[in-house]
Amino acid sequence: MSASLRRVLVLGCGLIGTSVALALRAAGVHVHLADRDLRAVQHAERLGAGLPHRPGDPAADVVVVATPPSAVPRVLRDAQARGLGAVYTDVASTKGRLLAEAEAAGCDLATYVPGHPLAGGESSGPAAARGSLFAGRSWALCPHPATSPKTLAAVAELVRLCGAETVLLPATAHDRVAAAVSHVPHLVSSALAARFADADETTLSLVGQGLRDVTRIAGGASGLWRDILEQNADAVATVLEQLVEDLAMAAAALRGRGGAAGDPPTDPLTDLLVRGNRGRELIVRARAAKVESLAA
Amino acid sequence: MSASLRRVLVLGCGLIGTSVALALRAAGVHVHLADRDLRAVQHAERLGAGLPHRPGDPAADVVVVATPPSAVPRVLRDAQARGLGAVYTDVASTKGRLLAEAEAAGCDLATYVPGHPLAGGESSGPAAARGSLFAGRSWALCPHPATSPKTLAAVAELVRLCGAETVLLPATAHDRVAAAVSHVPHLVSSALAARFADADETTLSLVGQGLRDVTRIAGGASGLWRDILEQNADAVATVLEQLVEDLAMAAAALRGRGGAAGDPPTDPLTDLLVRGNRGRELIVRARAAKVESLAA
Repeated sequence: MSASLRRVLVLGCGLIGTSVALALRAAGVHVHLADRDLRAVQHAERLGAGLPHRPGDPAADVVVVATPPSAVPRVLRDAQARGLGAVYTDVASTKGRLLAEAEAAGCDLATYVPGHPLAGGESSGPAAARGSLFAGRSWALCPHPATSPKTLAAVAELVRLCGAETVLLPATAHDRVAAAVSHVPHLVSSALAARFADADETTLSLVGQGLRDVTRIAGGASGLWRDILEQNADAVATVLEQLVEDLAMAAAALRGRGGAAGDPPTDPLTDLLVRGNRGRELIVRARAAKVESLAA
Repeated sequence: MSASLRRVLVLGCGLIGTSVALALRAAGVHVHLADRDLRAVQHAERLGAGLPHRPGDPAADVVVVATPPSAVPRVLRDAQARGLGAVYTDVASTKGRLLAEAEAAGCDLATYVPGHPLAGGESSGPAAARGSLFAGRSWALCPHPATSPKTLAAVAELVRLCGAETVLLPATAHDRVAAAVSHVPHLVSSALAARFADADETTLSLVGQGLRDVTRIAGGASGLWRDILEQNADAVATVLEQLVEDLAMAAAALRGRGGAAGDPPTDPLTDLLVRGNRGRELIVRARAAKVESLAA
């Protein structure tokens, strides 16, 4: 049980919202739940994620807005207008446009810090939720200059109770990183999986673990992901254009145009594979370092 | 122990060759091993994969050529010239060009059937080998019209002893499928990982399971993969060009050009995500059907 965080209201009982609620319940926090879909609230309640929010409930220490990205500014503004909590955060995977829209909508930025837990899954809805979803994961917080230190401290405490590690960075930097680590990989995984939308039995019989791994995230809810991509359109387009350039060059090299087989400097295919090896090594090493620091 | 397959010679003690040897040893087959790198042979022998091949050994029932793709025609021709076995196969992941080169090199096609086990991993060399690598996996065999029924039967028996399932298809069809299920996903995984070759600490701290999954195969040996891509250049380029087109259209849509947000027919991004969902569903279903048929 946390001394400073006794009561949390979660608005949105999808995968992330319900998982936050479960993690906080396990830490002894009183959690209340709301969703425009009453069945989602009932499902989350049956999982032990908390009690349905009722008008007249005392104000929460932190309100977590766990709706799709494009709904966050409106839900946040309404929640603040109704005085549902002392401090507000969200869990959307895009931050810049959302923060600008929240400001334009007249939200109180002193009591709001945008957040993004780097966790999730290809399943959605409360049925896929689990309290351990954030254990050992990073959780980005992107305070606005107007965000008060008290707001930031309260939400950082919520992150800690969920078992995650706070990473502080500006919203624009977050969006560039999120495009590279999450949004573009999702689009590319979808494009790879899309090649199999009309696949015949022989093709499917030859599918191995490699393709299963690279297409896992392509199972994500298309509506939610359309929203995420739109919210982070420019940063995603920038990373995607670089990737398209690399792949177009690889295709040209395979057609015998551009570059010669051989050493990395002259052979674009070897260069791409070697850079891929190096990037993969850093990705694996970063994970190993985090696992080690958690064990220490 | 198989009645028809008593003695196998494996030429090449890398991940696949050594794993084939271990699987066959577990089935009671006598296995002999050769590699131009003597340490690889010694390593495989210590793992219990078989005994080093010696001049004067009796001819094998099946010789497995487990070298990188581009070396297969030469190694096959030499092995046939020396009469090392009754029947020959290989395990390279490309088939069309290799078969044409084997024919041009004057190999005996009656005693040869090209093969490709759909298994592997991002690690290479005998140290990563295991006898269970092929359990429940597909193993493509691509007989030439000149391949004798006896040859095909012997190699199909070897596949069975390795715990895998034979999928018969022509070499050109194999290469089209392999480009889609394996070679293009590898290149794309490399291109995604390559974005992180110079990544800073903040970026790496925000890497989650999604990126780790889509970049797993990018850890593969770049030299071997350069060879595979070259051997299947046209089929890989064709699939890659379609993918580049999809991704370039997605980038344009994100920049506000081409298509409107909304329904799949008019919004290229939603269309791509929905086709990705459908393809992923078929990939998952194919795996579930195979696991079920293995359990039955």
